[in-house]
Amino acid sequence: MIGIFDSGFGGLIYAKNFNKVFPKYDFIYLGDQLRVPYGGRSPAAIQQFTEECVQTLWKLGAKLIILACNTASADALRYLQNKYLDKKILGVLIPGVEAALEHSGNIGVIATRGTIATQAYSHEIKKKDSHRKIKEVAAPLLVPLIEENYGNRPETKKILKKYLRPLKDFSVKNLILGCTHYAYIKNSFIKVMGKNVTIIDPGWEAVLKLKDYLKRHPEIDELLSKNSSKKFYTTDSVDLFEEKSLFFYGKKIAVEKIIISNF
Amino acid sequence: MIGIFDSGFGGLIYAKNFNKVFPKYDFIYLGDQLRVPYGGRSPAAIQQFTEECVQTLWKLGAKLIILACNTASADALRYLQNKYLDKKILGVLIPGVEAALEHSGNIGVIATRGTIATQAYSHEIKKKDSHRKIKEVAAPLLVPLIEENYGNRPETKKILKKYLRPLKDFSVKNLILGCTHYAYIKNSFIKVMGKNVTIIDPGWEAVLKLKDYLKRHPEIDELLSKNSSKKFYTTDSVDLFEEKSLFFYGKKIAVEKIIISNF
Repeated sequence: MIGIFDSGFGGLIYAKNFNKVFPKYDFIYLGDQLRVPYGGRSPAAIQQFTEECVQTLWKLGAKLIILACNTASADALRYLQNKYLDKKILGVLIPGVEAALEHSGNIGVIATRGTIATQAYSHEIKKKDSHRKIKEVAAPLLVPLIEENYGNRPETKKILKKYLRPLKDFSVKNLILGCTHYAYIKNSFIKVMGKNVTIIDPGWEAVLKLKDYLKRHPEIDELLSKNSSKKFYTTDSVDLFEEKSLFFYGKKIAVEKIIISNF
Repeated sequence: MIGIFDSGFGGLIYAKNFNKVFPKYDFIYLGDQLRVPYGGRSPAAIQQFTEECVQTLWKLGAKLIILACNTASADALRYLQNKYLDKKILGVLIPGVEAALEHSGNIGVIATRGTIATQAYSHEIKKKDSHRKIKEVAAPLLVPLIEENYGNRPETKKILKKYLRPLKDFSVKNLILGCTHYAYIKNSFIKVMGKNVTIIDPGWEAVLKLKDYLKRHPEIDELLSKNSSKKFYTTDSVDLFEEKSLFFYGKKIAVEKIIISNF
């Protein structure tokens, strides 16, 4: 069974993408709604929260874990991979970087304040292509606006334009949407940046890369059950999760509340 | 010593008001930045988090605690008062209600989703005046917009107008700003609602009521030290707190990180 972790609801977009490519694969989803949003918290807090959630997913039977949250991927993935050497944990960051590097030209990254503060995207890009020019910008209002269904309203488009201005001025040719939520308003990004800019959604790239990964690692693929079972857990209100699932997952989900072990 | 609690930074506006009326009174401020915002969480989570913070303030020496957060006042105050009968805990909600009832006409309440879900303002108003007409609306985007310094931008004014429309249609004559942050854009509320609507800021009313309260309870006033000492604690990043304090408190604050006991 695969474990999908997100700080809240954004990972449901990943889960929806996952179903398109892996309809039969079982997963358990854990959203840490009790402590969402991670995007403005300190690295220490993000590492602690992510670790507690990952441990919970292991207890629930996950054999492979996807951090379907850019902030957790940026702040906690390497820390967890180094600490739990015998466990398989993947993030969404590297797939986003790899997809961006398939194209030439300057790379832009837009994400939460937490993700930008780590400069994790820049570090990973520089490792693979030290000459590539990169600009990162934080867009802290986009998550609340999207969650409140304001994503396609003119106010949000105006705020988005303001956030994207420094990236346009930097002549980016590839723009990484460094937060799962942003895929929801991908069309607005295309409209502001223009058709010559490639928009990269790491959440979607991560699903495609997972397919390659499982082909290369049949011993891991074997561990994953395939009975089309999808289970959802939240660390706070079941009602709000069910309401949000309609928006992010495309249908209402039956969800169970779970109390995080170390919490 | 007085303990001032808030889920994040909003209570710093209360602390600033407090200083105007009680310049000599010592206080310790605790902002639960690690788990902010409370506004979208379940009542159980808000009660647990508030209780942990209040216990921490007691350990730090607080003799009287102010929940300078509407969401905590609405969800956790009565619970804590009933559980800790020998302790003094006050909120901002009742002062707001009392101020609104000094005027005639329909009452409107605008607040976070968490505060509105409790209907705590309506309950308290009905207890004192069962015939009063009340309308409550949730405005979940205002806190992030204000925190990101978008409070006075046209996008925010447009969003505010949308939130206030049902209150205007309801012909409210008194509008309670049911979230500490909103005081920051009080002028926008006046502009949208018109000059005939009384705008009530419970955070400010709570400071005034505290003055009356201490006059009526000299035995409590005696317990409060008065050396103009102000101390600040946060449950997460010191840097972000210091940055935000400039905005909410009017000057940069030296803050200490504290780990919440039961956490």
